[in-house]
Amino acid sequence: MAMAKIIPTFLLRLIALGATVSATVVMVTSHDSTTVLNLKFVAKYTNSPTFKYFALANAVASGYGLTTIFLPCKTSLWRLLLVLDLVILCLLNSSISAALAIGYVGKKGNTHAGWLPICGEVPNFCDHVNWALISGFVAAVVYFLLVLYSLHNIVNLLAGGKG
Amino acid sequence: MAMAKIIPTFLLRLIALGATVSATVVMVTSHDSTTVLNLKFVAKYTNSPTFKYFALANAVASGYGLTTIFLPCKTSLWRLLLVLDLVILCLLNSSISAALAIGYVGKKGNTHAGWLPICGEVPNFCDHVNWALISGFVAAVVYFLLVLYSLHNIVNLLAGGKG
Repeated sequence: MAMAKIIPTFLLRLIALGATVSATVVMVTSHDSTTVLNLKFVAKYTNSPTFKYFALANAVASGYGLTTIFLPCKTSLWRLLLVLDLVILCLLNSSISAALAIGYVGKKGNTHAGWLPICGEVPNFCDHVNWALISGFVAAVVYFLLVLYSLHNIVNLLAGGKG
Repeated sequence: MAMAKIIPTFLLRLIALGATVSATVVMVTSHDSTTVLNLKFVAKYTNSPTFKYFALANAVASGYGLTTIFLPCKTSLWRLLLVLDLVILCLLNSSISAALAIGYVGKKGNTHAGWLPICGEVPNFCDHVNWALISGFVAAVVYFLLVLYSLHNIVNLLAGGKG
């Protein structure tokens, strides 16, 4: 593959790696506590299976990003890479959507189900979750672009014959 | 494209269409009510923005599925179809993950946040949501297979020269 194709891929992978690492770190370090009626209430990401899943998904994506960023562009690997990029995209997409749904209930509550919002009590925790979600979203968008870019390259190869 | 490639695609699209339509219908018809302390409590999908998003995403995927199922396999359209399949996959994946996260809280609650489970009160509603999630999951898996199958065909075309 030409140099002109390696550089954008490398840059995209670098941004994605940064985003997934920061999403993981920001989620894992989210911590806040409040005292309601002499009862100490600690908010951390392990309180919700969804946030644990989010941290795990972003950690897996970080590991994958670190492994692939310096891979040479061999033809025998790009098929596998394309499929794995797609899997990581699905994983990140799913973890962000789930965490966003829970984060929304945490912020707004749900009067129908009687679930009260908790962000007023633990604003630092919610801030952390917010930033983690933004980082994760950036990572997912970058992986989407990576998959599209790989598809674009394949189609170009097709159109231009075997390059 | 050869007949051997059209039939699996058609079958996959048919299954995906059936799954998204049933996910939409089952979610939209989910309804249950209970009386707690003389207070009537109605559970329906519009109570949660996440479930509304799930129904909308599956309705969009159904519309897309209905449009594409009878499309002839023209070379000018398959690139667009591949990208749109990918977008629908992301949409379904995201809606299922979000609905699953909320459904999990509905079933198990979250003691840390003080959110009580509601499935004991409105079991019919939870059953409906369960089945809608299963249908949506089937649809997402089928779209994943569709994207992989399209990629496989493209790579085969590449390997075998311009077919």
